[in-house]
Amino acid sequence: MSRAGRALLGASRIADLEAAGLRRSLVAFSAPPSTRLQPPHQPNPNNLSRRLSLRHTPRLVNSSRTFATTADKMGRLNINNINPHVRAAEYAVRGELAVKSEELRAQLSKGDTGLPFDHVISANIGNPQQLDQKPITFFRQVLSLLENPQLLDKEDVLINGLGYKTDVIERAKFLLKHCGSVGAYSASSGVYAIKESIAKFLERRDGFPADPSKIYLSAGASSGVNTLLHILAESPKSGVLVPIPQYPLYTATLSVLNATCVPYYLDEHKAWGTDLEAIRSSHEKAKSEGVDVRCIVIINPGNPTGASLSEADVRAVIDFASQEQLVIMADEVYQTNVFIGQFHSFKGVLRKMQQENPGKYDDVELASLHSVSKGMVGECGHRGGYFELVGFDAEVEAAIYKFVSIMLCAPVIGQCLVELMVNPPQPGDPSFELYDKEYNGIANGLRERANALHKAFEQMEGVECGEPQGSMYLFPTITLPQKAKDAAAAEGRKPDEFYCMRLLEATGVCVVPGSGFGQKEGTLHFRTTFLAPGTEWVSRITKFHQEFMDKYR
Amino acid sequence: MSRAGRALLGASRIADLEAAGLRRSLVAFSAPPSTRLQPPHQPNPNNLSRRLSLRHTPRLVNSSRTFATTADKMGRLNINNINPHVRAAEYAVRGELAVKSEELRAQLSKGDTGLPFDHVISANIGNPQQLDQKPITFFRQVLSLLENPQLLDKEDVLINGLGYKTDVIERAKFLLKHCGSVGAYSASSGVYAIKESIAKFLERRDGFPADPSKIYLSAGASSGVNTLLHILAESPKSGVLVPIPQYPLYTATLSVLNATCVPYYLDEHKAWGTDLEAIRSSHEKAKSEGVDVRCIVIINPGNPTGASLSEADVRAVIDFASQEQLVIMADEVYQTNVFIGQFHSFKGVLRKMQQENPGKYDDVELASLHSVSKGMVGECGHRGGYFELVGFDAEVEAAIYKFVSIMLCAPVIGQCLVELMVNPPQPGDPSFELYDKEYNGIANGLRERANALHKAFEQMEGVECGEPQGSMYLFPTITLPQKAKDAAAAEGRKPDEFYCMRLLEATGVCVVPGSGFGQKEGTLHFRTTFLAPGTEWVSRITKFHQEFMDKYR
Repeated sequence: MSRAGRALLGASRIADLEAAGLRRSLVAFSAPPSTRLQPPHQPNPNNLSRRLSLRHTPRLVNSSRTFATTADKMGRLNINNINPHVRAAEYAVRGELAVKSEELRAQLSKGDTGLPFDHVISANIGNPQQLDQKPITFFRQVLSLLENPQLLDKEDVLINGLGYKTDVIERAKFLLKHCGSVGAYSASSGVYAIKESIAKFLERRDGFPADPSKIYLSAGASSGVNTLLHILAESPKSGVLVPIPQYPLYTATLSVLNATCVPYYLDEHKAWGTDLEAIRSSHEKAKSEGVDVRCIVIINPGNPTGASLSEADVRAVIDFASQEQLVIMADEVYQTNVFIGQFHSFKGVLRKMQQENPGKYDDVELASLHSVSKGMVGECGHRGGYFELVGFDAEVEAAIYKFVSIMLCAPVIGQCLVELMVNPPQPGDPSFELYDKEYNGIANGLRERANALHKAFEQMEGVECGEPQGSMYLFPTITLPQKAKDAAAAEGRKPDEFYCMRLLEATGVCVVPGSGFGQKEGTLHFRTTFLAPGTEWVSRITKFHQEFMDKYR
Repeated sequence: MSRAGRALLGASRIADLEAAGLRRSLVAFSAPPSTRLQPPHQPNPNNLSRRLSLRHTPRLVNSSRTFATTADKMGRLNINNINPHVRAAEYAVRGELAVKSEELRAQLSKGDTGLPFDHVISANIGNPQQLDQKPITFFRQVLSLLENPQLLDKEDVLINGLGYKTDVIERAKFLLKHCGSVGAYSASSGVYAIKESIAKFLERRDGFPADPSKIYLSAGASSGVNTLLHILAESPKSGVLVPIPQYPLYTATLSVLNATCVPYYLDEHKAWGTDLEAIRSSHEKAKSEGVDVRCIVIINPGNPTGASLSEADVRAVIDFASQEQLVIMADEVYQTNVFIGQFHSFKGVLRKMQQENPGKYDDVELASLHSVSKGMVGECGHRGGYFELVGFDAEVEAAIYKFVSIMLCAPVIGQCLVELMVNPPQPGDPSFELYDKEYNGIANGLRERANALHKAFEQMEGVECGEPQGSMYLFPTITLPQKAKDAAAAEGRKPDEFYCMRLLEATGVCVVPGSGFGQKEGTLHFRTTFLAPGTEWVSRITKFHQEFMDKYR
């Protein structure tokens, strides 16, 4: 609300009305024409949400004024004069449904018994430790010593009183030797010894050497994606090929950067694999429209789709990127969440192709990202991750280094957790047996829950869902009756949003509508994690679904 | 280097040459004219560094080609086609001198005895725990339990074996109750109970209520600054008043955002206080040039200056910001590092002014930032911080919430450390005595070292330095002989850069030249922390200085 509007009504009265959600009507009542001498904002119709466009009040330029204020006082920060690219960004994973689910959780914790469920299930976000997943003991024991190195003066208490094994103590000493203190900034790209551990892990994983100086620690993979997209975005014409459906970090960041998202559809009929013809045609179309396409994003295993790419698919993407001189951004944060077949890293496949075809793929530019957030580690609250660069120009690397320097460094305790993830206890180590048991227990639990959920979906009317392959998600297709679509339209919602909102209200289960990730016109989906323990919540979904279908049939 | 250039020379030979630092000459030899059909990049002459401009090879458009490649193959990512705003950003704190100091440290650790010093002193960066500052025991004991909650099953061992007090255990339980696990994502703006603790701290500090829902946890204050500047930057004309000298986070981020930095000079003759006339005239000048000035940044206590503002100074800035409808961004990360007088928070002073002048300052928009990185906490590696918003429009707050959601949440263990900082043990609590002793020990040590360093500067020829007032830095003026300036020019360096480079090479002491922060034309400074223990390193500086002055007199 404008300063003038406030003066007229009195601030405390306005605060009351705002608290009561009556803000918009107040604006309609009192908003004086803006006198800011700037052209009105032109929102990008492609990625501005319905909600935001409803909110925008038109900006009037140089028109007569109702209230006596000076022009500069009208400049107060408001939704119409902030960064239009931030305004336009959408991020559904933490959007309206997530906010609503938190409200319901708060209602329940205040003792509200009027809801048809007694707890909220956050199946909207891959947050393993919010649900059933326990942290791995070895990791957390080491971290406890890093946080309180004074404990290392009492080794006998650690070992005999607390059951810490000697390898826990050794690893803590190793990390402290190289970090100094986890409370000190590290080098901008991370602690060098940790980068060496990552390089050794990559060598074991891929069978090819890795260079620690090309590895950058980051605050989760998200921060790495943010860095790389910042570097790539030369102008609004700079384009990035992004899979649809996709994790909305990509479209949101490209929106903030005012660069161009070039969507390409994944093939639902091929278990959500990459479809090279679809990639090629999106690329050609974008180029013909003057877009300077410079990068292709691949999420493997897929989010939200759960797909796990074959080696042939990976090869095809690398070959295409090489031909078209595209940077490959391989988001591989789910690399250990694979249920069918095995994970094929872009780095490993690229090195093989380079070996098989000397010279042919030497110029391929690849950034591959990983994180402690997912997999059996599941430590997303620690914000640890890294990316490895292959084939990047040295001056571009220097610019990346400078960019990460501005934010100083990734959280150091998160860096240490990356070290533990890539260098876990080995057979024969004192902590191995427990580590192995915990790790496999989590892996098996995820597989079982994925299969149980998949089985439930198979039996639901109008729901189709491929076999679980990888990551932490299922992304079923839902076919809704026309009456449900009409009811959604009457509420001003997309049909999948409408379905997910009703599901949340009826069951307390929060999932994300497919429209938050992108989906082919005319198709509807939702994404659910399979992290929540037990099967009771699954039966809540099937029961709701049957009632929903009956109601709108 | 272009793909074609690589093909001509052979990749392995190029790698050798690049490793030998011969990259630039290779580019000069082989670079084919670019065929990218875009206008050449026009760097902003105001913030493009000398070094980078030397590196830029001109981009030729549509000219004839020497090598047979297709146009799109020339698009490989290089320094000339990355994001020009990232390229233009400068960040001196971790620039050339810092890199050189790390090289020297590596030389020493490899046993090199040919250097005139046996260890490097990193006085270039406020990194307390890299140097002498020990973490506070209470904080780290709690964090160790958060990282390994299994320890809470063995309270007797904790208490009798490890000396943990009961308040440590209680606090860990409180935080775990509200976080769930520190390995889980929190709400995007932080754990609500932690925001409540911060609000109570602000109430105690300022004597006025604070609203937890207006508090956003961030990954250090830097991430908060990044968020707020993102929101403010509507267009390249959006301007932010930034003090000069300043912490280069501000100019670097504005550069990345392609927004306008409106510098205003601090008054060295008034102990680097704010000079309202200087602010006003910078503001007027920018407005007259069409800049849409929307924010004023204040760093109090000052970085790099060490200034601590009087209440009158804070009042004057608030009054000015109110008149000109500017958002106030108060960077108050050094609020506990005050040696002279006391800290006056912008929030507290604003609330007083609102109380004294009903209605007059109700529309002031203030964002104040704090962090666990500095002060007696000194936990910068944990990347914890927060900002509080006052007077912001609800829709703007929603945009801020959405923006921070894209990066998911601040590191949860860092959020817990914020809680500990704002809610430390109180008199009567079991951990209070040790906490108090450690806290005061650090505070006194900083004060003593600041005074010792100041005393040394006072005795150095051509060096002037005000009494230490606050933060972790001194920022002396240096007056160098003309011969030194000529020698600097011959090396293509600014005189203060030249001085700092010679200081590093002769003594191993790394400081940052004033030009990295901005300084008035014709003046020279450097910034040094006073974190390093002992006085031996100070005498290294005085000895070097005398020899430098003698050499160039």
